[in-house]
Formats: sequence, structure tokens, C-alpha cells
Amino acid sequence: MSINQATIKYATLEEALRTTADAGITSIGLWRDSVQAASLVGAARLLADSGLRFSSLCRGGFFTVPEGRARRAAMDDNRRAIEETATLAAAGASGSASVLVMVAGGIPQGSKDLVGARSMVQDALAELAPEAQAAGVTLALEPLHPMYASDRAVISTLKQALDLASPFPSSVVGVVVDTFHVWWDPELSEQIGRAGREGRIASYQVCDWATPLAADVLLSRHYPGDGVIDFRAITAAVEATGYAGDIEVEIFNQEIWDTAPATAIARTIEGFEANVAAHLRGPGAVVGR
Amino acid sequence: MSINQATIKYATLEEALRTTADAGITSIGLWRDSVQAASLVGAARLLADSGLRFSSLCRGGFFTVPEGRARRAAMDDNRRAIEETATLAAAGASGSASVLVMVAGGIPQGSKDLVGARSMVQDALAELAPEAQAAGVTLALEPLHPMYASDRAVISTLKQALDLASPFPSSVVGVVVDTFHVWWDPELSEQIGRAGREGRIASYQVCDWATPLAADVLLSRHYPGDGVIDFRAITAAVEATGYAGDIEVEIFNQEIWDTAPATAIARTIEGFEANVAAHLRGPGAVVGR
Repeated sequence: MSINQATIKYATLEEALRTTADAGITSIGLWRDSVQAASLVGAARLLADSGLRFSSLCRGGFFTVPEGRARRAAMDDNRRAIEETATLAAAGASGSASVLVMVAGGIPQGSKDLVGARSMVQDALAELAPEAQAAGVTLALEPLHPMYASDRAVISTLKQALDLASPFPSSVVGVVVDTFHVWWDPELSEQIGRAGREGRIASYQVCDWATPLAADVLLSRHYPGDGVIDFRAITAAVEATGYAGDIEVEIFNQEIWDTAPATAIARTIEGFEANVAAHLRGPGAVVGR
Repeated sequence: MSINQATIKYATLEEALRTTADAGITSIGLWRDSVQAASLVGAARLLADSGLRFSSLCRGGFFTVPEGRARRAAMDDNRRAIEETATLAAAGASGSASVLVMVAGGIPQGSKDLVGARSMVQDALAELAPEAQAAGVTLALEPLHPMYASDRAVISTLKQALDLASPFPSSVVGVVVDTFHVWWDPELSEQIGRAGREGRIASYQVCDWATPLAADVLLSRHYPGDGVIDFRAITAAVEATGYAGDIEVEIFNQEIWDTAPATAIARTIEGFEANVAAHLRGPGAVVGR
């Protein structure tokens, strides 16, 4: 199990690393804003000192921007994210993953061209893939729930992410399987199987879905077990592909953010053990291994 | 164009029929609660007197209930809905559609078995199809946006609805294409084409998608043109299948409900003409034909 830093959003990087390690967890996924706040060199040093593995950096992407200055800025920002990922993966403990989570971006302002926006993602991947490859970084495309299709991610299904990834080596472009985003998909087990065969599962993230959705639908994520997601089936499908990486818990939820980080992590471990780890057959079944 | 009664939710049946006809619209889709409030016989008489076509009844379904008394009650309620549909279709003006919109229902309370809930839908269709066929009613399965998958409809994509419909004659089990629910789907144009080839498009409904979503995500629907949906592409795909039925505008939106029904209908016509009718090649291009 890995704690994604967003689960304890208000902790500084230093606090996040310490609270995670103190809880006996051995891996963490980081966010760019907090890495940049500490400076990349500083963040890498803190991470190395923590002894934790690094499981992913959130996030690159947001390249559904028409060609021009704004798109060039977005591409440059993604180049920095690739560099940050490589640096952090090298600083993390043995078994760290050199994975940059990519969120596609929504439909450009004023446009209704969903199909065109999707092709911008394909073009951006083609531009970034050689640089990611050179840096040893996997760009992990994250399909987001279709309720975010207009303003956050025009990539809505695992199938679509795999189709976009298909022109590239699997070590360079992979996918994220995040239960919150894909649990509803009628083709989920089939596409997880395909992702496994194609060697593209770069990250497996878990949190739960419950209704009513929060007024800000971004913040509707819950501890595993507090909603309706069948973690047994999804986790078994992911494990059956041979995926042996960290399983990140990433929760955006105002109520959880308002609790002390150590409390949130304790509750996360509890939900993870009962609802996710309980269904693993491998050594990952114990938090901290 | 047809006005779905939900767009002017607070109007009584009588007001809804009159306001619709007064606006020069020739077709209406009705809701069961208001039909039942007027009694079926009374509603049929009001509809006949209005001279309007009847385009659909909302709604049957909600049969994701384990076998037992609650499921029997749900099935009986669907039988009444089939009867209501047949009665209203007979009472409506020439060209009325004998279509009952079906919303599947969510995951049963306390369950996490999405796959099992879906199979309950298949079983319910098998039970109801002979009765619908005998009554000359088309059961129109409506895939709902995946954000409703847990609590309202375990059928989330057009493909899934078509797969469920496939064992039955197309006159008995069809599908609804509602832009709000399916606009994001990467396989949309392919599945609309398939629905057309299989003769399954029983209803085409339009309204727009905009963010931020309303705090109650059920109420996030907008006048055509007020959001990001590419009505040109979707409408062209539907028309290319040969679909010549009414196009219903169905909007759940508190702000729109709070305006006078005549005002809401005038705005609906305006949005429809500019964003939907403008892309039709056939005679439907003029409201009221």
C-alpha cells in the first residue's frame, strides 16, 4: 500500500513523509505542488531521508490546448514533470516507480469539439514519449470518470487510454487504474485483462464511490469500504495480470482533509486492509511490505 | 420537437398540454406521476383534447431489486406503466409513439454487486417483454450517465443497453439516446450507428451538459446550446440512421423550473432551433412539423 499525498492534502511534504513512515507504510505518491514548494532537490532529499518508496508523481497532462503559446507552456511544464519524476524515483527507496500520472485535460474553453480535444492528447503523447523514454519515466494515462469529461479529462475509459497508449512502448506510456474512475465500466474486467497483457498497468489506485456525490464532485472520494465499489473483483482482476506494484490510496474529501493526517492514515490503513488487502493473494496483502 | 413534461415540472398536466400546444409545439412526453394525478382515463382525455402527439412515458424500470415482494411490486408497477403507455399512445394525435422509457435502477441497498444488478435488469426485461409486445409498447432502455451508476441506473452506455436489448424484437425493446447521458462516450457514433442498424432507437432526447455540475447532479441539465455538447455531430448520427421520430427536450434544472412554463418552453424552442434543428436535413428541421 502507498499513501497518495492528496489523501492528507494539508500536510507539508515533510509532515506527509513522516506521518506515512510513522504509520508503518513504506511508500508514497507525491504531488507536484508540494514537491515544488520544497524545491525538487529539497524534496528528493526529504524523500531519500524518509526511506519511503516513491510510487508516482501527480500529475502531468492538461494538454488539450490548441497549438500556440499556451500549448508550448503546457508541454514545457510536462517536461519539467518528467524530470521531477525521474529525480524522485531515483531518490526513493528500492522498488520506487518512475511513474508520472497524466490527466488529459478537458475540452478547450469555448470549444465543443470533444473528438478534437482527444486528438490533442494523442499528439502531446507523441511529442513527450521520446523524452519520457530518455528519462526512464512511464507516462501513466489516467482515464477519469465521465463526469469530468468536459472540464478535466477527455479520456474517460480504460479502453480509450489503452488505445491512446498503443503506439508507444509499454514502458513509456502506461495507464492508471483508479477504482473511483472506472468501477462503473461494463468492460472493466476485460480492459484490465488487456492492460495486463499489454504490460500497461503503471499504477493501481483505490478509493470508494458513494452517493450523494459531494457538491464539488471532485471531493466525492471515500475510504475503501465506505461506498459501493467491489474491490474484491477489481483487485483480483488487477492482481491476475501480474501487477506487483504499489496500490495507492488517493482520496479527495474535505471531511477527511479536515482530520489530522495521522488519523486519516490510520483510517486509510483500516479500510485498505479490510477491503483491498484482504483480497490479495500475494505478499502485498500486508501493509508495509 | 417534443417537450418532455419534466422540463416544466411544476405545471399540472392540463397546463403542460396547453402551454405546449400554445407554443406551436405538436408533441409531448409525459411523466407517470402527473398522469396518475389526473387518472389514466382523465389524462388520456386531456391529451386527446390537446391535439398533441404523445412521444413517450417516463418511466418504468427500477427493477434492480432481489426477488421477493419488493421485486414483484416493481414488476407490477411496470405492468401498469405498459398499460398507461398503450392508453396514452392511442389517445395522442396521429404519429404518437408507444414508448415507455425504462431507467434500470441502481445497485440494491447494501450490495456491491454491480454485475448482479445488471443481470436483474436482463431478467426483468425477459419477464416484461411479452406483455409489452402484447400491448404494442416499446420498452426503451435508457443508459444513464455513469455518475448515476450506483443509485439510479446500472446501465451506463448505449452499447450495454443494446446488448441487453438484443435478445428481443426491436419493436419490443429499444433504447433511448439522451445526449446528456451519452455525449462523453468514445464509442458514441459507432453505437448510434449500430442502434440504427438494429432498429432500436425508440427515442432521441436532447439537453446540454455544463460544469460545474449542480450540487444535486440530477439537476445539471441545460437548454441546448448552453453547454459543451456537440449536437451537430450527435444529431447527424441519429438522423443518418433513419430515425424520424420526435426529438424530446428533457431538462431537469431548478432555475428553469423556477421560470414560468411558457418562458421555459420559449427558451427551449430557441435553443433547439439554433443547436439541434439547425443540423437536421429532414422536415423535422422546423419546430411543430
